[in-house]
Amino acid sequence: MLIKKVKSEGLSHNSYFVGSENEAIVIDPRRDCQIFIDIAQQEEMTIKGIYETHRNEDYVIGSIELAQRTGAGIYHGSKLDFKYGQQLQDRQEFFFGKIKLISLETPGHTDESMSYALADLDLSEEPIMVFTGDTLFVGDVGRTDLYGPNEAQRLTEALYDSIFNKLLPLGDDVLIFPAHGAGSVCGGDISQREDSTLGIERTFNPLLQKTRKEFINHKTTERHTRPPYFLKMEKYNLEGPPIFNKLPTPPPLMPKTFLKQMKLGAVIVDTRQPPSFGGAHLKNSYSIWLERIPSYAGWTLPYDKPILLILEDKTYLNKAVCYLYRLGYDNLTGYLVGGIEGWYKQSLPLEHFGSISVHELKNWLNQKDDLFILDVREDEKWDQGHISGSINIFSGYLENRIEELPRGRPIIVFCNVGNRASLAASILTRAGFQDVHNVLGGMIAWKNAGYEITTL
Amino acid sequence: MLIKKVKSEGLSHNSYFVGSENEAIVIDPRRDCQIFIDIAQQEEMTIKGIYETHRNEDYVIGSIELAQRTGAGIYHGSKLDFKYGQQLQDRQEFFFGKIKLISLETPGHTDESMSYALADLDLSEEPIMVFTGDTLFVGDVGRTDLYGPNEAQRLTEALYDSIFNKLLPLGDDVLIFPAHGAGSVCGGDISQREDSTLGIERTFNPLLQKTRKEFINHKTTERHTRPPYFLKMEKYNLEGPPIFNKLPTPPPLMPKTFLKQMKLGAVIVDTRQPPSFGGAHLKNSYSIWLERIPSYAGWTLPYDKPILLILEDKTYLNKAVCYLYRLGYDNLTGYLVGGIEGWYKQSLPLEHFGSISVHELKNWLNQKDDLFILDVREDEKWDQGHISGSINIFSGYLENRIEELPRGRPIIVFCNVGNRASLAASILTRAGFQDVHNVLGGMIAWKNAGYEITTL
Amino acid sequence: MLIKKVKSEGLSHNSYFVGSENEAIVIDPRRDCQIFIDIAQQEEMTIKGIYETHRNEDYVIGSIELAQRTGAGIYHGSKLDFKYGQQLQDRQEFFFGKIKLISLETPGHTDESMSYALADLDLSEEPIMVFTGDTLFVGDVGRTDLYGPNEAQRLTEALYDSIFNKLLPLGDDVLIFPAHGAGSVCGGDISQREDSTLGIERTFNPLLQKTRKEFINHKTTERHTRPPYFLKMEKYNLEGPPIFNKLPTPPPLMPKTFLKQMKLGAVIVDTRQPPSFGGAHLKNSYSIWLERIPSYAGWTLPYDKPILLILEDKTYLNKAVCYLYRLGYDNLTGYLVGGIEGWYKQSLPLEHFGSISVHELKNWLNQKDDLFILDVREDEKWDQGHISGSINIFSGYLENRIEELPRGRPIIVFCNVGNRASLAASILTRAGFQDVHNVLGGMIAWKNAGYEITTL
Amino acid sequence: MLIKKVKSEGLSHNSYFVGSENEAIVIDPRRDCQIFIDIAQQEEMTIKGIYETHRNEDYVIGSIELAQRTGAGIYHGSKLDFKYGQQLQDRQEFFFGKIKLISLETPGHTDESMSYALADLDLSEEPIMVFTGDTLFVGDVGRTDLYGPNEAQRLTEALYDSIFNKLLPLGDDVLIFPAHGAGSVCGGDISQREDSTLGIERTFNPLLQKTRKEFINHKTTERHTRPPYFLKMEKYNLEGPPIFNKLPTPPPLMPKTFLKQMKLGAVIVDTRQPPSFGGAHLKNSYSIWLERIPSYAGWTLPYDKPILLILEDKTYLNKAVCYLYRLGYDNLTGYLVGGIEGWYKQSLPLEHFGSISVHELKNWLNQKDDLFILDVREDEKWDQGHISGSINIFSGYLENRIEELPRGRPIIVFCNVGNRASLAASILTRAGFQDVHNVLGGMIAWKNAGYEITTL
Repeated sequence: MLIKKVKSEGLSHNSYFVGSENEAIVIDPRRDCQIFIDIAQQEEMTIKGIYETHRNEDYVIGSIELAQRTGAGIYHGSKLDFKYGQQLQDRQEFFFGKIKLISLETPGHTDESMSYALADLDLSEEPIMVFTGDTLFVGDVGRTDLYGPNEAQRLTEALYDSIFNKLLPLGDDVLIFPAHGAGSVCGGDISQREDSTLGIERTFNPLLQKTRKEFINHKTTERHTRPPYFLKMEKYNLEGPPIFNKLPTPPPLMPKTFLKQMKLGAVIVDTRQPPSFGGAHLKNSYSIWLERIPSYAGWTLPYDKPILLILEDKTYLNKAVCYLYRLGYDNLTGYLVGGIEGWYKQSLPLEHFGSISVHELKNWLNQKDDLFILDVREDEKWDQGHISGSINIFSGYLENRIEELPRGRPIIVFCNVGNRASLAASILTRAGFQDVHNVLGGMIAWKNAGYEITTL
Repeated sequence: MLIKKVKSEGLSHNSYFVGSENEAIVIDPRRDCQIFIDIAQQEEMTIKGIYETHRNEDYVIGSIELAQRTGAGIYHGSKLDFKYGQQLQDRQEFFFGKIKLISLETPGHTDESMSYALADLDLSEEPIMVFTGDTLFVGDVGRTDLYGPNEAQRLTEALYDSIFNKLLPLGDDVLIFPAHGAGSVCGGDISQREDSTLGIERTFNPLLQKTRKEFINHKTTERHTRPPYFLKMEKYNLEGPPIFNKLPTPPPLMPKTFLKQMKLGAVIVDTRQPPSFGGAHLKNSYSIWLERIPSYAGWTLPYDKPILLILEDKTYLNKAVCYLYRLGYDNLTGYLVGGIEGWYKQSLPLEHFGSISVHELKNWLNQKDDLFILDVREDEKWDQGHISGSINIFSGYLENRIEELPRGRPIIVFCNVGNRASLAASILTRAGFQDVHNVLGGMIAWKNAGYEITTL
Repeated sequence: MLIKKVKSEGLSHNSYFVGSENEAIVIDPRRDCQIFIDIAQQEEMTIKGIYETHRNEDYVIGSIELAQRTGAGIYHGSKLDFKYGQQLQDRQEFFFGKIKLISLETPGHTDESMSYALADLDLSEEPIMVFTGDTLFVGDVGRTDLYGPNEAQRLTEALYDSIFNKLLPLGDDVLIFPAHGAGSVCGGDISQREDSTLGIERTFNPLLQKTRKEFINHKTTERHTRPPYFLKMEKYNLEGPPIFNKLPTPPPLMPKTFLKQMKLGAVIVDTRQPPSFGGAHLKNSYSIWLERIPSYAGWTLPYDKPILLILEDKTYLNKAVCYLYRLGYDNLTGYLVGGIEGWYKQSLPLEHFGSISVHELKNWLNQKDDLFILDVREDEKWDQGHISGSINIFSGYLENRIEELPRGRPIIVFCNVGNRASLAASILTRAGFQDVHNVLGGMIAWKNAGYEITTL
Repeated sequence: MLIKKVKSEGLSHNSYFVGSENEAIVIDPRRDCQIFIDIAQQEEMTIKGIYETHRNEDYVIGSIELAQRTGAGIYHGSKLDFKYGQQLQDRQEFFFGKIKLISLETPGHTDESMSYALADLDLSEEPIMVFTGDTLFVGDVGRTDLYGPNEAQRLTEALYDSIFNKLLPLGDDVLIFPAHGAGSVCGGDISQREDSTLGIERTFNPLLQKTRKEFINHKTTERHTRPPYFLKMEKYNLEGPPIFNKLPTPPPLMPKTFLKQMKLGAVIVDTRQPPSFGGAHLKNSYSIWLERIPSYAGWTLPYDKPILLILEDKTYLNKAVCYLYRLGYDNLTGYLVGGIEGWYKQSLPLEHFGSISVHELKNWLNQKDDLFILDVREDEKWDQGHISGSINIFSGYLENRIEELPRGRPIIVFCNVGNRASLAASILTRAGFQDVHNVLGGMIAWKNAGYEITTL
């Protein structure tokens, strides 16, 4: 018996390849699904089934392509009208190799959410592992806000019951395999540790220490952000996404061709790190650092325009493409030959904005009167502590609320580390703001420096 | 927090790299230890400690080289007089990142055997994982026969107490990380499944279902083989092995140079699969299929002679070298250019022996009177069922017992699949036997064919 | 300026990627054309043109897929009615980066054969390199027999004139880049050395030392073999082959599924080396060693039946698939899980035949009367020297001439090394012959042993 | 016969692996010589000889380590008193496989410079290739200034004679394989094209179009820079460098450890691109972009201090280490965990300077009076055209001439593209200058923008 976790970095999503005696299944395959075919070949296994824990909202699922390429069946919950695959009832059993897989309806995160318990038939018929999807994470539980505030109470009750009445009774010794790890938008406080058991969660998961009432109260008052791309994902994962069978290969574009595409309306994503972006960038480009594409792109990029990429190094192309493809951005027109150096060697126009340290900010605060400090973190984070006098507009809402900002004053953009603030700063300069500054290190550095914060 | 299992295939040995917040430790590092330095770099972590679960007897440990290259300290049990590293007492605590590691004396497999419990300080001070060394495996427990029959009773009692009084009390929900997986010579019946918890083992591990008395009785009557290379490993792992800092790179040898080295006394290891070896091989070569080097080489190869390699494909060189290096075979003179084809193109002499199917064997048994069926499996396996009339000499003892075999009769060599029998057949032909035949598929195929076996 | 030679091993075919200042062309792209897209990305170049030297007959060209994926135009000679691309006249000029490419009509190998001279405009307008297709190789020239004996004289005259009047006048210092290297079926005696100039060829190429008359006489009396798959290639390369956009991924098949597919009529290709195949193989399988697929498959495998693969090691799958795909074999049903061991562990039936050394053959010749020595080399090779008493049937014709062989006698199959003979032996056993033996080392070993050959 | 060119990027140095029939030689092996052992294994060849074209001055040669690891002999010219290897006379002959190698004394670049002509014995005894070292490049010839102005005339005469009397007489059709390609400090104007012949060079190499007098006049008035590390290389390559047998593996250092090492006197090399460095960097760090380490490090870094690295991405570590190792910088203390972000999250102090476009510079020139424009290109480049009013101090001399710069004025640093200027700007800020600005795009962008230059 073999379990291979396939992580999608940035999304912090886990797919699982589970095999026994030349037969295998995949749970929640990611869109770039060649990897499952590669593992199957390496292990000399045939993929017999594809099991979805729910209609995922944060990435494009690869079930249909993988099914087409392997002949495997697709299975998911019955409480949603999927346009593909087969519906499962509670406690159906599936056998492959020496494994029994048992479907468990565990509504709460969504109505159709399923978990899958697994028994190793070499041992017994009793489950010893469970794939918990977005129902139970290591150190956290699934979001229950996705259907809107009117449904949150109902979903939260369902989630509590799914965890306490369906999952925990499987036994303390049962290993858990959730759909997300730390950093996912699907859970606020998932642990860095990946390995856990129902017993460890029962004892230590802070949410599971609460009474049902406390649990419901806590979950229904949580504030999560909900990026606009979720709508696209929900549609794709209900109906099936476009199938490409391989990753897009956007071509290298010479600066002049790149410029032409810009003028035709393509959106520019500059994937370099904040100090580089601040130092020099193209007018109208978005600053989305490569490793933050999974988190920020879905807040920022439209689906109806072509996308142009700027890379620190051309070897990053594949990673950038992968990250965008998993979010359904397939319309990649090309990337800039020679990167930013290629651009400025042609004496094409550059812009830049300031990158300052927290110490410089501290000094400025003491010296300058007209600073406008824009804190672009989630409002929950802002509530927990911020620089006195700062104004909070979450970066994801900034383009729609740009009118609230004052023109003609120095704007200091502030976030947790400096990446989100770089995106926000790029949104400001796109909107014509000048005298914009990003604070490198953000709240982490501010706190490390021992500077004062307030919750007022 | 991060745990990376580093598997040494063939040995079925597991080393563990455990990291948290830029600090890491390694448990039982294998000899080719560059991989731990690579992981540390990839994760931007510093290796602070190297923990040995016991003086391993089945491979060369890489602690000293890794310590030299990283500056980490080495720790092991106090009940053996190691010539390097520091001794641990029971329940010492070590901290790195957000992890607390607790040493647990768990004698039984050996006197100095240690386990290491781990607490994730982000959760609590309570252990949630335990590295169990050769004390407890998934589905099995450690051997207690290594000190000889006089000590087995004492060790077995200690093992039982270590498991029941030290490990299981940590809690059903605690994850276990043993030093070996399925296929190891250190446990007869380790499960194919790698993930487990103390609770799963408490409930399902067949050994843990026994009473103390049954357990002791079972373990003290177990029969394990003990390859002669264990002595070398024990010496190396007590005193420290030769340090090379990189894998050996045996050069390609043209057939004539290869021949010269043969004549100077080098031992030839032919790593091709049994049907190839049977089809054509060099006089005096040993048949040890690449993937069985970890299991068979230590039974067969001397430490005081240079070794020559024959490969199916030159790309296998690194794997063969790795496997031998882990067993302390450092004296690799070279490998044959062009493989066996390179040899026979030079019209150098070839030998071959028959490879027959179980059906052919069945027919021969019906037709021929003088067949000598030599079953080279472990005697325990033979006792459980064998072909009527077959004689059992375990392959590892064959060279010493070669005088027991009849000259002048067809000898059919038989094992479980055909790999061990190929080695045995090569030992026979080295000793001048002719009319030797290997049965492809061995007992597995024999049973699959529905042919009769006996336990008499 | 950059030239990357992309070699297709086995076919000994060379494609060329030529780039300058972010623009590139490809000459004779092979079918698995992702590599050109990868190079283009790595070098940040755009592929602007695809140039064919002629309708290749020995592999499937990748021009159409590469054109579709890059937008590049396709160009070829005007003397054949291609169903795609654009026709070129003599001495058309194309510019990319700082390069001028000049088309040269160089008929002879075929009527539409083109060469492409290249000038580095940083130097001058004078060509300093020439891509010579199948017109001129290092140490040899192209075949002129492909249109049949009636056309050979005309083609050979054209070839001579193309070389002497078109190519050599470019200058001794001009570097040549031919479409094939040593081992190609498109040239009998291409040099192992890859680098050459027109001057070196003018001085040392044995064919270019001849007078026009000698040249024509030599070429029109050459005997080349012409594998039947050439017809398929010619059709594909005239009209365009099926487009897949990626390599096929044949699935692993469990022995019983494999058996079922066999019974449904699939053809089995066993890619292991001859001693392995001889030692044990499946009834009815063809012995085509992995590295000889490019040479032998097109003689042996039908296009209208599915193909099953047996591999020495599953990691060879990709190579085997690649080799077959380049010859247009797309219908790959799967490969055997566990290889031959997987098969015999199931006690499924095995066959084997003898693999003997040249020394054993020599002994047998002295001892046995009824040996039938079947020499399966090309008849030209046979004429140059063979074992006295041997009968020559080229392996490629063997299936059609199988009736000429005697039943009931030991048949010794003989070739140059033993690979082709292994295929021939497998053809014999498929046809029900028994007592078949392959001679390992073949004529090379026979000669190295100093044994006698005859030309009678 | 096989020739593999091993390029050392940045240095633009070529080593050559030349093999025939299982025997090989290496010409000018680079220090990280594992690659030659890997090729030898891949090709199943034995390295029999190591040939040096001269005592290289721009990198550490790997001859001794490679000789120790393979048993090959080392050969070089007799006109220098090397402390290792064997001396060659003119026209000695060496045979390996089917190759004859002929040593040719070709003094001029240095007194002991050798070329090696190669005959393919399958063809004839006549050379068809020549390895020209630093004597003749594609499009250029070797430097003759290394012994100082007093010797330049003598060396240049020797070089002319070596080329015209030794090399060109080998024949127009002879292929050349020089020790350097475009971008090397050993030749000012080597062509981007890598393939050439003596005939192409005779006809098109600008230097070879001159009369002997013109040639000597041209070469003796050339101005080359001579980085101080050449002295170290010359010593190492005369006596033998330290031998490590593998690349250094500098450990990841947490910011506080990094800071401690800084304070102990380590030198910091920040390998990020200029816009990133300008945007935010550590006080006292040098800006040497990764890909310019081979060119700039030897001008800047001392050999007697430990070196600390800052990387854009930890995956670049190996490249940075490789580049430094080839220049003899072995004392690498570590690299910064988390890169610059790791630093600023700890709220450790940052510095930054401006990165401006040529358009901004143009505007400033129109608006500001007190700009000090520091052009850090080679003086020869400056003479050919510069911004009116700029002052030229070559970056390599800047630290020694820092007193010539005015304090208290804005300093605009200018070079060809912006990389060298970034290094210069970092030298200025190390020396306490403020108000420093780097011009992104440099002279290339300035010219592309059509702005005015002067030669006055």
